[in-house]
Amino acid sequence: MKFIKTPVKGMCDMLPSDMRLREHIFSMIRETYTSYGFMQIETPVMEHIENLTSKQGGDNEKLIFKVMKRGADFQRALDAGKLELADNGLRYDLTVPLSRYYANNKEKLPSPFKALQMGSVWRADNPQKGRFRQFTQCDIDILGDDTNLAEIELITATATMLTKIFAEINITDFTIHINNRQILRAVALQAGFPEQDITSVLISLDKFDKIGLDGIRKELLENGYAQEVVDKYLSIYENLKDGLSCTEFCAGIGEEYLKASVVSEMDEILSCVKPMLSDGVKIIFDPTLVRGMGYYTGPIFEITIDGYNFSIAGGGRYDEMIGKFSGQDVSASGFSIGFERIITILKDHMQGEMGFGKEGTVFLLDKNVSPKKKQEVFLQAKQLREAGAVVSIQPMRKNVKRQIEMLEAQGFQNFQKIYE
Amino acid sequence: MKFIKTPVKGMCDMLPSDMRLREHIFSMIRETYTSYGFMQIETPVMEHIENLTSKQGGDNEKLIFKVMKRGADFQRALDAGKLELADNGLRYDLTVPLSRYYANNKEKLPSPFKALQMGSVWRADNPQKGRFRQFTQCDIDILGDDTNLAEIELITATATMLTKIFAEINITDFTIHINNRQILRAVALQAGFPEQDITSVLISLDKFDKIGLDGIRKELLENGYAQEVVDKYLSIYENLKDGLSCTEFCAGIGEEYLKASVVSEMDEILSCVKPMLSDGVKIIFDPTLVRGMGYYTGPIFEITIDGYNFSIAGGGRYDEMIGKFSGQDVSASGFSIGFERIITILKDHMQGEMGFGKEGTVFLLDKNVSPKKKQEVFLQAKQLREAGAVVSIQPMRKNVKRQIEMLEAQGFQNFQKIYE
Repeated sequence: MKFIKTPVKGMCDMLPSDMRLREHIFSMIRETYTSYGFMQIETPVMEHIENLTSKQGGDNEKLIFKVMKRGADFQRALDAGKLELADNGLRYDLTVPLSRYYANNKEKLPSPFKALQMGSVWRADNPQKGRFRQFTQCDIDILGDDTNLAEIELITATATMLTKIFAEINITDFTIHINNRQILRAVALQAGFPEQDITSVLISLDKFDKIGLDGIRKELLENGYAQEVVDKYLSIYENLKDGLSCTEFCAGIGEEYLKASVVSEMDEILSCVKPMLSDGVKIIFDPTLVRGMGYYTGPIFEITIDGYNFSIAGGGRYDEMIGKFSGQDVSASGFSIGFERIITILKDHMQGEMGFGKEGTVFLLDKNVSPKKKQEVFLQAKQLREAGAVVSIQPMRKNVKRQIEMLEAQGFQNFQKIYE
Repeated sequence: MKFIKTPVKGMCDMLPSDMRLREHIFSMIRETYTSYGFMQIETPVMEHIENLTSKQGGDNEKLIFKVMKRGADFQRALDAGKLELADNGLRYDLTVPLSRYYANNKEKLPSPFKALQMGSVWRADNPQKGRFRQFTQCDIDILGDDTNLAEIELITATATMLTKIFAEINITDFTIHINNRQILRAVALQAGFPEQDITSVLISLDKFDKIGLDGIRKELLENGYAQEVVDKYLSIYENLKDGLSCTEFCAGIGEEYLKASVVSEMDEILSCVKPMLSDGVKIIFDPTLVRGMGYYTGPIFEITIDGYNFSIAGGGRYDEMIGKFSGQDVSASGFSIGFERIITILKDHMQGEMGFGKEGTVFLLDKNVSPKKKQEVFLQAKQLREAGAVVSIQPMRKNVKRQIEMLEAQGFQNFQKIYE
């Protein structure tokens, strides 16, 4: 019989200290978002293969772990020529299941509906350092609110949550970047790019942090756009001054390209969020923020932290996506928190591993201890537990030194050896 | 494009009130077991198909959701003749993953190791009322403790946890049944059954509650056993008096069938657990308790509650199982809590659905509210949240009556309509 000790490729066993850290963060996330009226929901980890392969999921659809049909269904599919051997797949994100969930349960939910999801997703990606095939996503979404109250709630709640978490490692500073897909579109159109090329142009602009304006210029010219159009486009992004407001940036954009209300609503988001933030947390209008996903339709946002070259949260408005899945239009805006990235940052700054943070006692019993003595120890443990301590009762090992060391590593401090 | 609104067959969408109840129970379970020194761990939901189909899993191995190989591996397997199309499967219990986990991580863990697992498992069973294809299991296990301290800890911790949970619905009474596989074996051997038939005899005895002694007698005779052996066997189980001790029951069993230490250790479990229990909770020696699983080797236990014909927790010692999986002998004893069953009992006794149990306010904003007013509302909400309330800010719907009703159903009590 073959028995394989290691976990499935690209997946992790969580040690007790990992779990203590993760559960602690889960509970802070849950508590903060709940105070903003978000409600936790859960969907099965398996989804219909049809829903997962609807072409809305982009490249993730290539990374699905497919679940085989079973019994007669499987045999029929196999005999019929090797097609459609799977009827289900493991979810690759939490957005497809949310769309299905909302279509299925809408009548039982308030509108707007503020959802919190924390759960595993699976992608058959090439495993790399820090990139796993099973990992946790944490998303909040507001469905059915077409006003910017949704964005203000999403951003404020997330900033509050991150402030609390990072306070534990004495980090107080991070930056919220905000932009709007309609502004990105308007700038490109006014420069002279055709509507159908905007996605491609934004893919170039998205590289601003990596290759700079010169790199973008080179790429756009290589893609065959006219020097004049490219120059006009990039001049807008030259010499952007710190603290630029959305109104200032958009001053030169014609009303035919951009509705004035888009700009005023952006300013409103900024002005409402700012007074809600703790010292050290900044929100800035960032006209070069693009965010990769094609489905965004309005405000987009991202959170960065000094010393890390990845964002720790990102999101935006995606009014058309749920309708594409479910056939029923629903305005939607969401924020996805990079849970695994936040864990990485916390571990970088923690002194050692996460203990259980309570008084911890272990009673180590010699094998000759009498029933009467055992009874006494158990009753004593009961009292200590009721007073809030962690207490474990176990047999004393021959190598008691190592036994105690391993228990100390988990956070126990007191050890009582019990002999008859 | 086909989009399916309902979840995959046999699986559930969790509504917010479901999740609030489940998370509340999860946190009580986690808190209680942690105070007994159990440490939460987590394994990936996928396991190697080899580990899942090692023949240790009994009938569950027929119910595996298999995950297809991918890319070239899949094509090769398909071309090679339709064998081994799956390389992974979804776990059908938490014990197989625990065996693998312990073999993989033993060096990093204290010994004995007290594990707590709460997670989903999957079985491609026929869905029925109350039986799902994805459901939560909650197991505690003590690995590497061959003394009855393990059983005392497992039983006491579980009784404490259930007492706390049931207190919320004013249930104080439940019964812990305890027996021992070695005693069951000794009684059968002494009556004259051959060693190799004991499993089959115990399958009949396990039906005591359903068909009674007469039914068991009929079944054993039909199975071809001699009248004399059957009569001798069943006479032991006749007229069992209430409050029978293990020593009393075993008085007639010869030392050649049963070591005296098995009996004294059973009595010790009972005498140590009894004083730890709350009023209303009973622990009894139950000589007819069998528990289905073939892998138990020592003490076995089960918890029942009046008014329900299923057990709400069950477990026992399984010293040989982990060795069969991993090739390395490890003594082990565990208790598995029927999480979904406990949720069912709680729902039966709850008045309505689970709200969020806090002061809850919703600000409903008219669409003409000015930016300045919005800012004020957001700051007011911030203060209320910091004082511990749940506050949501959202646009006022045309049908504000229904909007409020749906929010009330989730647990909000205060509604403030904000106009300019």
